[in-house]
Amino acid sequence: MSANKKHIAIVIYPGFTALDALGPYELLKMLPDVEIRFVAHQVGLVTTDRGILTIMATHSFVQTPEPYLILVPGSEANTAKAMADPQLIKWLKHAHAHSVWTTSVCSGSLILAAAGILNGCPATSHWLALSALAKYGAKPQAEERIVRSGKIWTAAGVSAGLDLALSLMGEIAGAEQAEIAQLLLEYDPRPGFDSGHMSKASEAVKSQAIQEMTYRSQHTSIEYN
Amino acid sequence: MSANKKHIAIVIYPGFTALDALGPYELLKMLPDVEIRFVAHQVGLVTTDRGILTIMATHSFVQTPEPYLILVPGSEANTAKAMADPQLIKWLKHAHAHSVWTTSVCSGSLILAAAGILNGCPATSHWLALSALAKYGAKPQAEERIVRSGKIWTAAGVSAGLDLALSLMGEIAGAEQAEIAQLLLEYDPRPGFDSGHMSKASEAVKSQAIQEMTYRSQHTSIEYN
Repeated sequence: MSANKKHIAIVIYPGFTALDALGPYELLKMLPDVEIRFVAHQVGLVTTDRGILTIMATHSFVQTPEPYLILVPGSEANTAKAMADPQLIKWLKHAHAHSVWTTSVCSGSLILAAAGILNGCPATSHWLALSALAKYGAKPQAEERIVRSGKIWTAAGVSAGLDLALSLMGEIAGAEQAEIAQLLLEYDPRPGFDSGHMSKASEAVKSQAIQEMTYRSQHTSIEYN
Repeated sequence: MSANKKHIAIVIYPGFTALDALGPYELLKMLPDVEIRFVAHQVGLVTTDRGILTIMATHSFVQTPEPYLILVPGSEANTAKAMADPQLIKWLKHAHAHSVWTTSVCSGSLILAAAGILNGCPATSHWLALSALAKYGAKPQAEERIVRSGKIWTAAGVSAGLDLALSLMGEIAGAEQAEIAQLLLEYDPRPGFDSGHMSKASEAVKSQAIQEMTYRSQHTSIEYN
């Protein structure tokens, strides 16, 4: 790929949630003149949250010091480990200082917060992580699916990454480019159920979802080298 | 994983479109008592459509002869190569004869059709592949996002895989389980643009999307071993 292309750094780490990263990837890959990089400690395999799906990091942090766009996905059980990863946090601080866009999906915003990027900043996260986000200095916006705060855009849980990436494409390349990408992905969602937000789900669904997420966040941690 | 678990075989092949497979994966992984397998000729790395993202096949076709559920993703440039892959087609015929569910996303339905699975069967595909689908004996349903024909469910382009998987979860495990998964993924889509279907996009967007897809289908083929 050409050296003139803008680097899009999709950060990956052991235990990240695949769709947080790969939903946005599927749209951002359609931007003109970009080079998408899956960035980790080193080039090599990284296993996602349930230990089933493994994807390849194409570049190291060192190889990608100043990307145009940063995207940080969340995790079921390993968000705290990523927040405590000194190499990741150091890279994030430097990269954010030079980025044009810094973005996160799901609990990825907690990782941005751990790098001091969200201090005093309106932001969102997976609904279960919103209270933690406040503890790290951000201003949680529970009702928003995408929160735009200057160059920092944060998305709600998992699938919200698609909406973040589509809106960001519109901002970067214009509405028509976003609409072309939307049509190519046939992104005309019809979920079939209407339980995708805490304000819409039944009490039974909410309580079981909290129980499941609490269990997963404690019991499916992926080894972190 | 337990031998008693139901196998979900997500077929992967060089040049497949990541979100076609990984959108459904993110939901189907939440089904109880299933083992998700990324199935290919052999265990090992498989590169997706633009040559950037590489994921690991966890099992071979031979290791997974009779899965409970089959999911076949589409591709930008390599659908025809997958349709002409004798090992994949042979596996698909046998697996479908024993499956409880046989499903596809995007141009994955053309691969089902090439295996003779969609003869006379109502089905859908990416909007650009609908006419090809008719040539292979299926009955294209241009207005439907998900087409259910007995145990065979086909989805429209790329992102439609999320809707297919969510509805299928409801069918397999009940509406409440689907709603819990929907809330966990915060799947309450708000795309920000409304150009995700051919009936909604402007003439300029449609014409550029067709041009882009035609180009991609001819120029970004991934090596197929």
